[in-house]
Amino acid sequence: MASPKPAHADDLAKQQRSISVAEFFEKNKHLLGFDSPTRGIVTTVKEAIDNALDACEEAGVLPDIYLGIFQMEGDIFKVVVEDNGPGIVPENIPYVFGKLLYGSRFHQIRQSRGQQGIGISAAVLYAQLTSGRPTLVISRCGSDRPAFRFLVQIKTETNEPEILKREETTWDRVHGTRIEIEFKSSLTARKRLIEYLRYTSVVNPHARIRVEIDGEAILFDRASDEPIIPPQAILPHPHGVELGELKRIAAGSKEPLEPFLINSFSRVGQKTAHEIIQLAGLKETTKANKLDADGLARLQSAMQQVKVPPPPANQCLSPIGEVLIRQGLEKEFQFDFCSARTRPASVYHGHPFIVEAALGYGGKLDAEGNARIMRFANRVPLMYQQGACAITGCISAVNWRTYNISQSGLPTGPVLILVHVASTNVPFTSESKDAIASIPEIEREITLALQELGRDLKTFLSRRDKSRLSEERARAICAIIPEIATKVAETIEKPVPDITPIEGQIMRRLVTKKWTDNGTVNVSIQNYTSHALDLTLYLITPDDVSTADPPAVFVEEMGTDKSAVWQMRLAGGENWQLRYTGTGNGMIDIRGVDEKKKVVVDLDRS
Amino acid sequence: MASPKPAHADDLAKQQRSISVAEFFEKNKHLLGFDSPTRGIVTTVKEAIDNALDACEEAGVLPDIYLGIFQMEGDIFKVVVEDNGPGIVPENIPYVFGKLLYGSRFHQIRQSRGQQGIGISAAVLYAQLTSGRPTLVISRCGSDRPAFRFLVQIKTETNEPEILKREETTWDRVHGTRIEIEFKSSLTARKRLIEYLRYTSVVNPHARIRVEIDGEAILFDRASDEPIIPPQAILPHPHGVELGELKRIAAGSKEPLEPFLINSFSRVGQKTAHEIIQLAGLKETTKANKLDADGLARLQSAMQQVKVPPPPANQCLSPIGEVLIRQGLEKEFQFDFCSARTRPASVYHGHPFIVEAALGYGGKLDAEGNARIMRFANRVPLMYQQGACAITGCISAVNWRTYNISQSGLPTGPVLILVHVASTNVPFTSESKDAIASIPEIEREITLALQELGRDLKTFLSRRDKSRLSEERARAICAIIPEIATKVAETIEKPVPDITPIEGQIMRRLVTKKWTDNGTVNVSIQNYTSHALDLTLYLITPDDVSTADPPAVFVEEMGTDKSAVWQMRLAGGENWQLRYTGTGNGMIDIRGVDEKKKVVVDLDRS
Repeated sequence: MASPKPAHADDLAKQQRSISVAEFFEKNKHLLGFDSPTRGIVTTVKEAIDNALDACEEAGVLPDIYLGIFQMEGDIFKVVVEDNGPGIVPENIPYVFGKLLYGSRFHQIRQSRGQQGIGISAAVLYAQLTSGRPTLVISRCGSDRPAFRFLVQIKTETNEPEILKREETTWDRVHGTRIEIEFKSSLTARKRLIEYLRYTSVVNPHARIRVEIDGEAILFDRASDEPIIPPQAILPHPHGVELGELKRIAAGSKEPLEPFLINSFSRVGQKTAHEIIQLAGLKETTKANKLDADGLARLQSAMQQVKVPPPPANQCLSPIGEVLIRQGLEKEFQFDFCSARTRPASVYHGHPFIVEAALGYGGKLDAEGNARIMRFANRVPLMYQQGACAITGCISAVNWRTYNISQSGLPTGPVLILVHVASTNVPFTSESKDAIASIPEIEREITLALQELGRDLKTFLSRRDKSRLSEERARAICAIIPEIATKVAETIEKPVPDITPIEGQIMRRLVTKKWTDNGTVNVSIQNYTSHALDLTLYLITPDDVSTADPPAVFVEEMGTDKSAVWQMRLAGGENWQLRYTGTGNGMIDIRGVDEKKKVVVDLDRS
Repeated sequence: MASPKPAHADDLAKQQRSISVAEFFEKNKHLLGFDSPTRGIVTTVKEAIDNALDACEEAGVLPDIYLGIFQMEGDIFKVVVEDNGPGIVPENIPYVFGKLLYGSRFHQIRQSRGQQGIGISAAVLYAQLTSGRPTLVISRCGSDRPAFRFLVQIKTETNEPEILKREETTWDRVHGTRIEIEFKSSLTARKRLIEYLRYTSVVNPHARIRVEIDGEAILFDRASDEPIIPPQAILPHPHGVELGELKRIAAGSKEPLEPFLINSFSRVGQKTAHEIIQLAGLKETTKANKLDADGLARLQSAMQQVKVPPPPANQCLSPIGEVLIRQGLEKEFQFDFCSARTRPASVYHGHPFIVEAALGYGGKLDAEGNARIMRFANRVPLMYQQGACAITGCISAVNWRTYNISQSGLPTGPVLILVHVASTNVPFTSESKDAIASIPEIEREITLALQELGRDLKTFLSRRDKSRLSEERARAICAIIPEIATKVAETIEKPVPDITPIEGQIMRRLVTKKWTDNGTVNVSIQNYTSHALDLTLYLITPDDVSTADPPAVFVEEMGTDKSAVWQMRLAGGENWQLRYTGTGNGMIDIRGVDEKKKVVVDLDRS
């Protein structure tokens, strides 16, 4: 056995040195999502757009974002992202873009897309590594401020920003930020890039994203004009506080224990504070920063044991909501069935979180192969590492056969599954934020949401099968009704009656009927279906619709004709009547019900 | 649309600040493998033992490592790891254990277990966070140096070490390091912990690890007394150099281009340097640090285009080798078949790497369920996130049915698959180093290794099936031989002959026969199998074995009897003879052949 040379520890000592976080991530760039030039472009766009959306949200602005991607010489691509956010003050610009681990959201306990202060500076780092070029930033903080133009890069050895140029400039945006990054890349991932933008648009219906990729223009317009109410930061929850953290918080407070607990933690009132102090065997008058190691340990242990309500999730989280998820999905896909669930807030390690999920079935979804899976965290689509994600794990673990869906690992067939995890601290498996780590509390919520959706689908499928059956029966009956009507009319020597309503009733349809009697035009809408319908009635007619009762919500002149619109909600079985003076000439249509369920009878035209 | 308050950018600016890397990892501790207290103990042990093995290897010392795990009060556990490495000079101890991103191996291009300078300080961070306690370190750098005892922790806000105690002390180790860490944990993961140690022992046959877990002692002894030749650091390979990196290297050199290229990069000689400079259209006399942005870009591009031999993998990598892998596996498992492959060195992004793989089949492996998978990177077992690892992906992607192995995603049945990836820069999916990222070059090598092993197994299985068939035939023939012998003996009126050798020949067995003739004992061993056998003959007898020809390799007195041992290698079909003077009393046995293939006939006892 060789004995070490006495000098050896000294040799090693000479090699030991501090590594800057920029050096670390330059070497391990795949951890940040810069595995390859192909992927680099997706990651850069994602980081820039995440930042833009976060900034707009914080300022209560409806996001209006421009994304441009241009091939420069050779394999150098330029990515431009411009937003109408609040802008960044010039003193901070070099740090925001030229220093890893610099940001405003790291210490805040609330839902946000970016949090680590790594993303966009990682893109700057990748740019200077692969193209050698600095990043251009223009930002302006309001109409009373000048715009500033910076050229920045990162000094890798120190992780400090290097300002190559700083100048005042004019800019037609009143407030906002523009960034131009050039790096080695390719457009091989174009499809995935557009998918990322589409998915982003689905879960951010308040955002408009104008895109220009190498000549092609695409608009992802907003579906809602309501800016998102930005989630508010909360205090740490007592159940999630580790001893080391408590030590730090306490060291910074000169308050006695009771106000210290109330003011430093969420959901702690006087009663709870009192209970914690008693259980820890401490004195109320002790100042927080005077606690010794033993006292802190007892305080922390008591904080875990005392019952405290969960953190105020509504305040710090911003789920998308079942309605918007369904709308967003139905804008992009066509389903026979779609259901969404927003689960109640839950907690892991003291971090509040909410799971939302949606299930689409049938329609134009691919009938073959695995289900389409859409994963989101804090309103950001997760585009890579599907296999490593807890969401995928949960989807595979659910027994979909119970809900009449075939399965081979993942569910198969015409199925789309969306899962959104919103949290003040989403546990990603790496800095690139591609996949959610396996946290039992989160997995439980995902599974519950999926099971609820599975049950919804099962109900739909069995109803569909049932209603198919009863529809076939109804169809058989309706086929003989005209004959019966004719026979009866003959027997009692009366004209053949209008059998539409009877058919409507049997077939459970929406029957709209129009007829004119002595210069009065009548429209009757009867909802024979079993559920409420939001309907819009359209009428194009030369008649004077200003006499209508009820009046139209909208009238427009179209030459000699008028186009008039009524809107109404009809519960299952309900009837609605309209009258106006006229000849009954013109056209009638109704929207808001499946075409197959719609019967329109215009007796004036028959 | 709400307009941002003019003050908003200023409000945000107040919140923007730098985040220390310790704060970052405290919040994202799951990235470092500290997801839960249960896992924390495995990660801590792993980091400490990795460091110990690395240190011993660097010093050319055979590792002698002690691991103790003790439950203290409540859920606080103490982990003690002591090694006989070169020790750490006292000035550096606080940084090695009390600062994240501090180390000696980050900038070296060679295979090592630890590289990032994060692991062990992350354990210190986790300890102070969960137990509030600092870490104890004792280290000594040689017999002429005193030992030092430190109590250190990390100032989270700054990622700087805080020394709570520093004192000279006496220590019975001449050189080495001892660390004692206390943190919240549990022993739920005990099984996985022991598995980690066993796997570590398999791929580090030169290490002795003495373990004491909560009262139970386990020894993982070394299987080889050869210290590993520590891999040597190499220069960066020109094909793997990005522009930003080249810029930095060039800025630090005052040499003209030719010597600059030769001295700064591996595998670049005069001819290649000349070629690169010409292709880049640069002048030989230009000093490296005088190159402008355009010159650097052209130089980098030329470096990628010129043919350069791959990096010197033998120097900087330390694969385990096929023989040691098989030995290591066969020490722990029993197979019917085992094959190993060390692939030739390959390169990704300029980083050399070697893939090794082994396949075990049958024996005592579980016949049901998925194959057992053992993943290693730089001689370290990967214990978590199997699903997220490129190794698992490759195993699933191979079509095992081609090799007569059943498969459902992973191969199923009595199969064990080991894969080891050794590289100067293993691309892990996160800092916790649980899983290897999907790098096409690495995946290709893994797949090739697995396919080669699959073919080996297929050959084995079809031979086994063939030999089963011929054995059945042979058995049928042997069943009637005694009857034939008896009949023939009757007919020709001779005694029934000894038919053992005939049976042995037909059944392809090893037949050992002993008989005594006129005071001479004879032993004959006939190898009727088709392959060579390494055999050991044991004899326990009162006879005088000192007269034996050939003489025994070992004789021991056992009361009036002697125990004697002979060793021999017999090729298929070969015969071996032994003679000694005596009565033939005693016992005979032979080892080194499957029991089913062994026939021992002692005519002196029959």
